[in-house]
Amino acid sequence: MGTVGSGTFNVLQGNGAEITRRTGAEVKVAQVAQRRANPACDMGTTAITDDIFAVATNPEIDVVVELIGGYEPAKELVLTAIRNGKHVVTANKALIAVHGNEIFAEAAKHKVTVAYEAAVAGGIPIIKSVREGLAANQVNWLAGIINGTGNFILTEMRDKGRDFADVLKEAQELGYAEADPTFDVEGIDAAHKLTILSSLAFGIPLQFDACFTEGISKVSQEDVANAEALGYRIKHLGISRRTDKGVELRVHPTLIPEKRLIANVHGVMNAVLVDGDAVGPTMYYGAGAGAEPTASAVVADIVDVVRGLQVSPLGYESMSDMPVLPMEDVETAYYLRMMVTEKPGVLAKVTKILGDGGISIEAIQQQEHHSAQVPVIILTQTVREGQMNAAIAAIEDLVEVSGQVTRIRVENLDG
Amino acid sequence: MGTVGSGTFNVLQGNGAEITRRTGAEVKVAQVAQRRANPACDMGTTAITDDIFAVATNPEIDVVVELIGGYEPAKELVLTAIRNGKHVVTANKALIAVHGNEIFAEAAKHKVTVAYEAAVAGGIPIIKSVREGLAANQVNWLAGIINGTGNFILTEMRDKGRDFADVLKEAQELGYAEADPTFDVEGIDAAHKLTILSSLAFGIPLQFDACFTEGISKVSQEDVANAEALGYRIKHLGISRRTDKGVELRVHPTLIPEKRLIANVHGVMNAVLVDGDAVGPTMYYGAGAGAEPTASAVVADIVDVVRGLQVSPLGYESMSDMPVLPMEDVETAYYLRMMVTEKPGVLAKVTKILGDGGISIEAIQQQEHHSAQVPVIILTQTVREGQMNAAIAAIEDLVEVSGQVTRIRVENLDG
Repeated sequence: MGTVGSGTFNVLQGNGAEITRRTGAEVKVAQVAQRRANPACDMGTTAITDDIFAVATNPEIDVVVELIGGYEPAKELVLTAIRNGKHVVTANKALIAVHGNEIFAEAAKHKVTVAYEAAVAGGIPIIKSVREGLAANQVNWLAGIINGTGNFILTEMRDKGRDFADVLKEAQELGYAEADPTFDVEGIDAAHKLTILSSLAFGIPLQFDACFTEGISKVSQEDVANAEALGYRIKHLGISRRTDKGVELRVHPTLIPEKRLIANVHGVMNAVLVDGDAVGPTMYYGAGAGAEPTASAVVADIVDVVRGLQVSPLGYESMSDMPVLPMEDVETAYYLRMMVTEKPGVLAKVTKILGDGGISIEAIQQQEHHSAQVPVIILTQTVREGQMNAAIAAIEDLVEVSGQVTRIRVENLDG
Repeated sequence: MGTVGSGTFNVLQGNGAEITRRTGAEVKVAQVAQRRANPACDMGTTAITDDIFAVATNPEIDVVVELIGGYEPAKELVLTAIRNGKHVVTANKALIAVHGNEIFAEAAKHKVTVAYEAAVAGGIPIIKSVREGLAANQVNWLAGIINGTGNFILTEMRDKGRDFADVLKEAQELGYAEADPTFDVEGIDAAHKLTILSSLAFGIPLQFDACFTEGISKVSQEDVANAEALGYRIKHLGISRRTDKGVELRVHPTLIPEKRLIANVHGVMNAVLVDGDAVGPTMYYGAGAGAEPTASAVVADIVDVVRGLQVSPLGYESMSDMPVLPMEDVETAYYLRMMVTEKPGVLAKVTKILGDGGISIEAIQQQEHHSAQVPVIILTQTVREGQMNAAIAAIEDLVEVSGQVTRIRVENLDG
């Protein structure tokens, strides 16, 4: 009974009458398993146990709601519940992204549902929208702001000119970021969610290990300001796209045109843009975290079970063996920033390397600077990541270029 | 086989393999009923009839898809199909908004589904999102841009400083607006859709006749520019809100803060903002019309039937008798524009009428003008519409005020 557990309990109690009006049935919390009591949650006369496996075997229970988080004992609890013929509702993105294939197979064997709407983008019904609402489509691509902490940090960096470390500290004080912020700021949380979205969109098995993951911890105030000046915003996106060669699966900071609706999703809010071949671009927006928004999704899954709405968890009866594309084969545009010695011929060397590598330049800008080293900003056209890797290595080898080249991918998100 | 009919046929054919992969079943067009052949749609060897009732009685057909539009013969076709035990999928908002209660009752009697995702906001899965995705919530309010033609016109008026009549003519040439644009520009189409959304959100019977409906045909370029200068945009919204006294149900031009995400939904795109008590604000965005986006929703409904996903059409097993609030009891803020004779004491008279009527002024602006008549702009705080009606009547009675007072409602949309 942590944050989401208490939220779920409270929503079930507070909106019990509305849920009964919707479903014609009463949803009753039969038993709560908790290690420690949560003083914030008044559970009245609800039966409580400290043996978490008790709920998985309790014959009076139809649906087990797993809100522990992490891999174990969540995985064992879920599998035990399934093997005891119970439907499972979970908000556990890490569990689904990493062990979902095994869990879903077990659920199919026992003819029960595993529902996990709350695992991606909190209260936004994105799982249902992709799996059912867009079921007529071949999805072309999707791109989402699916980590509220990261979006809060990038929003503050842009709005107030603050630095990453400074905003992260505030986010931790506000409770938006964990004491160990690695999962959020290094993109692992977003990669869990993107892995799930990608499988839902394309009908491929969950392949978390194949997800390219780059966080926002290296995004500098300078890059945020440069993006702004170029008409872009930097957002931390999870992107998955169907190509002839495979499915792209990548989480990284991304420059997107400021006029895109998703570029205007601020603070801790989440949004997922899904482009289907029939419907075109659609977007789903809302709170990606928090007790009650997450509970909204958990309880919606319970209501689905009560209503007898059962779809295979990823929405496909037969899976595709389309491979996940290696990152070096992904094609995207780039923003590059490098510090060069201000002398004639340097730009010629840099642009020659790009040209020789088959990389077209969209824009180039040498910024004013009060030292011998000046920043050069380059926007490229779309090129294969492998070609860009080679070009960046060659540029970094130039004696006139100091330090590393900063590279942020650029996506137009227009279809 | 008009626009949406051909689109649906094409999506079913083009994405047939994907749909089979998703459902494990093959969806076959068993028969097409059409009055006239559509040369744009190659139906191959599909059985065709010109007797539309043939599909409603054909024993080989499980699902009848009604894409005729309008009340009759669509209503008779749908009822005949239901009475013959067929599930019905329809994109017909007018039919559902006006005859939905009767049709849903008949469907319940015959234990078949009536699905109508395409009736509201085209390809956006908004019906499913409200009915299922947000089922844990008591919805507080919803507000939608649910007529693409109207949003295209308002977007052009703002972006290019053009007049209503001028843009309407272009919209007609582009095929965005009908030769008779009444349904779109006078808000009737939006009122159909809002009626449906309101019943889904609050579990009240469909009450199209109770919907307050004001179109955009009287929105002037001057008001669009004034709104912009005040930090607002004018959008044609359908708004439904739960209050202690009843449910608001109203379609009208609305000033909304420009920083709201929905204020940045441009052109023919649609978006619906739904605020639930657990989830908070969520938004759903996409194409609200067009052959393939609408077909995306029609085919999603078919897939639901194939998957055996049956929910009562409005998502409630027991309906509420909460009344629809008369417009004069609705509380909102207002933008007022009036032409007054420029002489001392006029503003005092106007503000006295407002004050005596219990109306607080948020901002007042007397604009410069090169004539004896000057425009005065007033933003008020929230007040009951009945009080505002009385105040406007009194202001119009002043000899110093010429013509009518322009009144556009203002909504903050922040929860």
